[in-house]
Amino acid sequence: MRMYDVIQKKRDGLELSDQEIEFVVEGYVKGDVPDYQVAALLMAVYFQGMTPQELKTLTLAMMRSGDTVDLSNFGDATVDKHSTGGVGDKTTLIVAPIVAALGGTVAKMSGRGLGHTGGTVDKLEAIPGYETEMSREAFMEQVREIGIAVVGQSGRLAPADKKIYALRDVTATVESVPLIASSIMSKKLGSGAKSIVLDVKVGSGAFMKTKEDAERLARAMVDIGTLSGRRVTAVLTNMDIPLGKAVGNALEVLEAVEVLSGRGPADLVQVCSELSARMLCLSRGWAYEESLEKVNTALRDGAALYKFREWIARQGGDTFFIESPEKLGVAPVQVEFKAEEEGYIRFMDAELIGKAAAVLGAGREKAGDAIDPVAGLVLRSKTGDACRKGGTLAVLHTSNKEKIPDAVAFLRRAISISPEKPHEQPLIYGVVG
Amino acid sequence: MRMYDVIQKKRDGLELSDQEIEFVVEGYVKGDVPDYQVAALLMAVYFQGMTPQELKTLTLAMMRSGDTVDLSNFGDATVDKHSTGGVGDKTTLIVAPIVAALGGTVAKMSGRGLGHTGGTVDKLEAIPGYETEMSREAFMEQVREIGIAVVGQSGRLAPADKKIYALRDVTATVESVPLIASSIMSKKLGSGAKSIVLDVKVGSGAFMKTKEDAERLARAMVDIGTLSGRRVTAVLTNMDIPLGKAVGNALEVLEAVEVLSGRGPADLVQVCSELSARMLCLSRGWAYEESLEKVNTALRDGAALYKFREWIARQGGDTFFIESPEKLGVAPVQVEFKAEEEGYIRFMDAELIGKAAAVLGAGREKAGDAIDPVAGLVLRSKTGDACRKGGTLAVLHTSNKEKIPDAVAFLRRAISISPEKPHEQPLIYGVVG
Repeated sequence: MRMYDVIQKKRDGLELSDQEIEFVVEGYVKGDVPDYQVAALLMAVYFQGMTPQELKTLTLAMMRSGDTVDLSNFGDATVDKHSTGGVGDKTTLIVAPIVAALGGTVAKMSGRGLGHTGGTVDKLEAIPGYETEMSREAFMEQVREIGIAVVGQSGRLAPADKKIYALRDVTATVESVPLIASSIMSKKLGSGAKSIVLDVKVGSGAFMKTKEDAERLARAMVDIGTLSGRRVTAVLTNMDIPLGKAVGNALEVLEAVEVLSGRGPADLVQVCSELSARMLCLSRGWAYEESLEKVNTALRDGAALYKFREWIARQGGDTFFIESPEKLGVAPVQVEFKAEEEGYIRFMDAELIGKAAAVLGAGREKAGDAIDPVAGLVLRSKTGDACRKGGTLAVLHTSNKEKIPDAVAFLRRAISISPEKPHEQPLIYGVVG
Repeated sequence: MRMYDVIQKKRDGLELSDQEIEFVVEGYVKGDVPDYQVAALLMAVYFQGMTPQELKTLTLAMMRSGDTVDLSNFGDATVDKHSTGGVGDKTTLIVAPIVAALGGTVAKMSGRGLGHTGGTVDKLEAIPGYETEMSREAFMEQVREIGIAVVGQSGRLAPADKKIYALRDVTATVESVPLIASSIMSKKLGSGAKSIVLDVKVGSGAFMKTKEDAERLARAMVDIGTLSGRRVTAVLTNMDIPLGKAVGNALEVLEAVEVLSGRGPADLVQVCSELSARMLCLSRGWAYEESLEKVNTALRDGAALYKFREWIARQGGDTFFIESPEKLGVAPVQVEFKAEEEGYIRFMDAELIGKAAAVLGAGREKAGDAIDPVAGLVLRSKTGDACRKGGTLAVLHTSNKEKIPDAVAFLRRAISISPEKPHEQPLIYGVVG
């Protein structure tokens, strides 16, 4: 088999065979196929796309290049959730204990954040004592005993994807829906859960800026998962504004506790309830209405919060903060960001709000950078809310007061106020799969 | 400037600036821009194309990466001809002396052949004593004195094109009309002639298989040349059948002498007359009809043959063969290829005929391979001719009789005979520029 012929075939819009795709992935990882040929192929894929069968084969080949987790001992109840990344997305901290409380098995590996979107592992590390690394045996034992464990991703998960992603990142082939789908699913399938719920974010704070692109991505991922023998549902959710009110690691952990206590901002509660219900439909086989009702009950009667406490304690975390939020630390500098005019908040650019939080210390510029766990911001108002001149729109939290002006500059650009109340946008655009 | 942004811009169908294109070409030659980024850009160009302005800038940047020939001392009469490559294409040997005899200045650098298409330099080297290498000074002096010189290409002509072509060759991006146009013109513009006539071949023996593709290529090359301040005309000629009857180096030199002596096959005479007339229109400013008439006269009255003899002798060639063809050598093995049925020749695949000649020793498999100057074949019949069973269709010439069966196998595939006379095809499809 010659790489040239594979490139030409894709360039001409023909479907690659399983053997051809495996030849590319295995050859590239081994170093037999050079960067420049893979770069040309990736650009051809950018223009010609890939069929579901091609995508499945690519995804499984990338998955098999690394370690995979075998969760088959836990039967069909294992369920994972993946978010395509947004600002203020603390849903894992909420849906994982809800689903575990209702009999789903959540054996989850999460990522760290890069740039303005903090990862779940970064948020969990804001909890003193929480261990994000543990042995395979300890992980399995914890899942068996309490139905939930959340650890950091192993470095050997889909190294072929890592190598291909690094090449896409320098050849302008990141923005390819099939390649994004395959990259995400190679890691998700490798994590071993039978059922997967995908939270595909749409809007200014998300990678997918339009509903159409998000739907294409969702469809591609659902197809890959289904063709690989998994149960997959994708939920398209609004990321034109940050989810909830808190952006920043400790601040988001505290907001998660609010939701699990039956309080918490309505938008965050709605998205977490939807995701949890979909996870239960797949893993428990319940109907959607029934699942949703059980989720609401678990939030009201304390079952979800109980499971959260059990999980955090089991992984070494100090749970005092659940009753005493200040135990997670308090930012020495807290500054109010005020409205300069009266009216309604017409738009909040989630990406710019994320950048403001990152500047304050909540995000990293490059892999390996340290994060300030207490840094971030809390929104007092959201899109559609009325505001008066001088009213507080957000509170900025940081350990370094020199960062305030930069963060304020981002917020000024992020938030626009107009005299008229804007139309309300749906929070959930739809479900695929 | 970042290469990433350049790739992304082209990927998204936007026009690259002169600075961006120069950044890519200069950076790639210096090694600052890696293969994989150029490969991705080339594939994006394959899908998005390039504007005339982009192509001009790319072409001139590639040209400037190497040596260029300054012919400005010769004024506006300098004229070059380029063929996109075909089987049995000995037009340079014919049109160069015709045009020089009529006052055009032909200071020409020609290439060697690779694969089944022999280059002009290979043909000239079939003439004992002919020197294809000479100093810049000697070349200029000869042009000044007799108006014609034909030498081999310098190794330093457009090295950027050479490096980019090598990458295209392994990334399935050769078949891009703008990239082909730019590659050809970077070498042609570097050769310094004020006027350029392009012979764009169309058909089974050419790189461009359809008239539409050939027209696109011709238009792109004419635009590049015109935007660079040259006078350019492209002639689209039929390469569904070999030009003339001889394929092979010495055999083609002898056929050229036939044409210059006012004899020679009609198709070859017609194409050479057309190309010569177009070269004279550009370089002498004559009208087309007048140019064509002068060409016919030069072929009839011996002026063209006189100039040919003067040229070959001046470059050290033994001109005895003009009167005594056997002086160029006679192949020890000559075998007739006979028709197996009666009818009309419906089709002759020029590429397969070229391969038959190459197998006999007239071509190379890879750069550096030796060529057998006397090897090749002479067609007795061409498309549309009647043939009887057992009649001779071609005579094969070689120094190695073991090659005969392979050559015969190619010829059997190349020539198809049917009971009905096929429709006649035009020899010249049109003119661009």
